[in-house]
Amino acid sequence: MPPLDATALDRIFRTARTYRAWNGEPVADATLHALYELIKWGPTSGNCCPARIVFVKSREAKERLRPALDAGNVAQTMAAPATAIVAYDLEFYEKLPTLVPHRDARSDFVGKPALARSTAVQSGTLQGAYLIVAARALGLDCGPMGGFDPARVDAEFFPDGKVRSNFLCNLGYGDPAKLHPRAPRLAFEEVCRIE
Amino acid sequence: MPPLDATALDRIFRTARTYRAWNGEPVADATLHALYELIKWGPTSGNCCPARIVFVKSREAKERLRPALDAGNVAQTMAAPATAIVAYDLEFYEKLPTLVPHRDARSDFVGKPALARSTAVQSGTLQGAYLIVAARALGLDCGPMGGFDPARVDAEFFPDGKVRSNFLCNLGYGDPAKLHPRAPRLAFEEVCRIE
Repeated sequence: MPPLDATALDRIFRTARTYRAWNGEPVADATLHALYELIKWGPTSGNCCPARIVFVKSREAKERLRPALDAGNVAQTMAAPATAIVAYDLEFYEKLPTLVPHRDARSDFVGKPALARSTAVQSGTLQGAYLIVAARALGLDCGPMGGFDPARVDAEFFPDGKVRSNFLCNLGYGDPAKLHPRAPRLAFEEVCRIE
Repeated sequence: MPPLDATALDRIFRTARTYRAWNGEPVADATLHALYELIKWGPTSGNCCPARIVFVKSREAKERLRPALDAGNVAQTMAAPATAIVAYDLEFYEKLPTLVPHRDARSDFVGKPALARSTAVQSGTLQGAYLIVAARALGLDCGPMGGFDPARVDAEFFPDGKVRSNFLCNLGYGDPAKLHPRAPRLAFEEVCRIE
């Protein structure tokens, strides 16, 4: 098949930027549902689908998030129409009977917390990247962030102790006038080799 | 901005599948270069860009990979036109003077191996997902795999001990006649909430 057209490649990778300022347009709940309907198809290890996502939209929920944010991330997050808490379920395997109906995949993980954790981190992070790309594909702009206190977010949003936050991602419609020049990237030869 | 068209959303998410059989068409080195030129733009924590990729194409290099593969992954991998070893550099911070020229980001990580490792795993895995989506955007099909011995791959392909393999991803042009029915996914309400 031919590559997607330049508009699509630009949108999801080449001209996409990390935004810290927003144009004020809200993000509809229907858009967040449409976003998940894309994310869900991305591949995970053995179809384990460990990501769990809280979309923080209301003023009340934003105020619960605020004390966990690094100082430099407060203003952009409070202003964003939605902030996704991208997390993973350490007990994702309890849903494997639904996700992998043809065999007993659950017992691969029960009583193996180190394997469950590394699987949840790896596939949950893949799903976090699918969220970023899918949001851009839907016309949203993203502001992913690692600068927050995950233990505080977990205590506030995942009090049962089974779900751990991975990163945050502001979602909205960005203000390109507030972008800084783009940071450099590495050349093919510094990252890749063909053998 | 409006969403990308249905063709693009189908290609990168909705109808994309994990392939285990290939139609015999090779993958040009130029396509692997084009792939990296998309991947490189995906966001990473502080622009740390820790992913390192070996594209295994030659018969000789495939034979070096073979003994590290789980039995169930040997045939599809030996037949694939290319297999990406998606890895991350534990000393990625040595390139931060290039990637983050405006401040001394390198010293955030020197002498902090736990932080360097968790950063490399997280951002390197995001970049692995960008590889999957970017490959599909270029018209390639993917077969990502976790079933291999990472220590054996690392000893063979990254003998300096600084780079660790994360997952493998076969790349080529898939044979849709060999696909099984698609595995189920979780409903929005099982994964997400809006607060």
